[in-house]
Amino acid sequence: MKLSVYAHEMSDYVQNLQLRIVNALEKIDGQSKFETIDWQRPGGGGGRTKVLKNGGIFEKAGVNVSRVEGDLPTSLMQRLGTTESKFFATGLSLVLHPRSPQVPTVHANYRYFEQANKSWFGGGADLTPYCVSESDFQHFHQVLKKACDVLSADAYSMFKAECDKYFWIEHRGEARGVGGIFFDYMQDNHVKSFSFVKAAGDSFVESYLPIVERNKDKKFSERQKKFQLLRRGRYVEFNLVYDRGTLFGLQTKGNIESILMSLPAEVNFDFMASMEETEEEKLLTSWFKNPRSWI
Amino acid sequence: MKLSVYAHEMSDYVQNLQLRIVNALEKIDGQSKFETIDWQRPGGGGGRTKVLKNGGIFEKAGVNVSRVEGDLPTSLMQRLGTTESKFFATGLSLVLHPRSPQVPTVHANYRYFEQANKSWFGGGADLTPYCVSESDFQHFHQVLKKACDVLSADAYSMFKAECDKYFWIEHRGEARGVGGIFFDYMQDNHVKSFSFVKAAGDSFVESYLPIVERNKDKKFSERQKKFQLLRRGRYVEFNLVYDRGTLFGLQTKGNIESILMSLPAEVNFDFMASMEETEEEKLLTSWFKNPRSWI
Repeated sequence: MKLSVYAHEMSDYVQNLQLRIVNALEKIDGQSKFETIDWQRPGGGGGRTKVLKNGGIFEKAGVNVSRVEGDLPTSLMQRLGTTESKFFATGLSLVLHPRSPQVPTVHANYRYFEQANKSWFGGGADLTPYCVSESDFQHFHQVLKKACDVLSADAYSMFKAECDKYFWIEHRGEARGVGGIFFDYMQDNHVKSFSFVKAAGDSFVESYLPIVERNKDKKFSERQKKFQLLRRGRYVEFNLVYDRGTLFGLQTKGNIESILMSLPAEVNFDFMASMEETEEEKLLTSWFKNPRSWI
Repeated sequence: MKLSVYAHEMSDYVQNLQLRIVNALEKIDGQSKFETIDWQRPGGGGGRTKVLKNGGIFEKAGVNVSRVEGDLPTSLMQRLGTTESKFFATGLSLVLHPRSPQVPTVHANYRYFEQANKSWFGGGADLTPYCVSESDFQHFHQVLKKACDVLSADAYSMFKAECDKYFWIEHRGEARGVGGIFFDYMQDNHVKSFSFVKAAGDSFVESYLPIVERNKDKKFSERQKKFQLLRRGRYVEFNLVYDRGTLFGLQTKGNIESILMSLPAEVNFDFMASMEETEEEKLLTSWFKNPRSWI
């Protein structure tokens, strides 16, 4: 298929962004380096996955870029309401799972899609904490808001609401974390959209690394660790049951390890796990059940 | 809706079976007892979940019966090809996760369904080992075959093939274990089908407990434990991405804890986990990738 200039520019942008993020993460981790895995997609295209395991701070951290093309499976064509099967997609996706429950898990994803004379941007970022640290959650949202302001004055509040809706674990009646931003099918003004997507991608390091810095050396209790393992279980439930990117990847026979790098390493799925044992857990759970404003 | 005699008899049968199985499991576990959780389904019906946690043998064991009725969600009506939303379902479902990798995980489920002038039986049982023990896998299949023979001489081989197909982790290109039997939409001869389902349910204790007895005191290495945690990750992947019972439960707003009691407690999702480090792992993996005959 003939690709637009945005396909090429977005692909270049995310490759460069991947390097910048990985460098910043290696510096703060201090112990482990990312390994690079290049992969080809049998149906067309491929990607470069960078993963850090058993680091000083990160138990499992993945930063993946991909540029794939080929034919959509019928089920996805139906969902997109199209009869044209050819597609192109490029993007960056990262999920960082720190070992300490004091440091929140973070996810970010920025992508560009072309299909049947349409093309659109999508993406977002969200934070999943295991301990209470309101100023950190405010910081994360504040930095994302600054990027959204590139697009319009009300973009942040729309995308914040979309995020709370998207990262919702329907069967639990709770969000997977304290949210961030989410947007999809952004197709009206590519000049402006691409500027915004770059502002959002560029802001990742500023949105997250100061949070790591402030919390990485804090002590934690055995119960705080257990709560983290249980909340990681909810993270797995969300990703495998609801996440569109994960299911798209599995259905289009993407690179399995790159798709599932989003799953935390150590997880616990206790039966009827107690999730409100401490005041901290009660407060966090109340925010997961009733997403609140952070700005 | 007006229920058939099978609805009542199957409901009684699984309640009785639950007690028999739970008694046998408590005896062999020796350390923990099952706790009972009765639950109501908001849309109609309910169930009784029995769960044992942190036992001498079982890390997490759940034996659940339910009897639910109400309205199917639109998505399920479409899949069943029906315009009638009323349904009734009753059944027993169990998943046992032993702590030692020497003892295989087991699952069994027997159920009866009524919907729009149709009614059918379904069910199955499958074994997920973490260590090689061919005679145990043969024993498990042999006992299931004896139950299948109640139905017909070729029932076992059909249901064994169905099982290999059903418990297939498509994105990994491997089965979740060494199989067993699986059948669904069995609606032609309820007298014979019900006799078979009872024979299969009755055989559970004989199919599994001798395997526990033979392996429960065996030593295991750190690597064997790690392999178990990784294979448990595949178990979670199967249940949350593909298992019809799990997705049916989540979509019909069933009791979340009873549905997800099938998930093992401690799990690991390493990136690019090495799954063929030892001769034992290579052999098991070859059987997962190419299901073989056990009789």
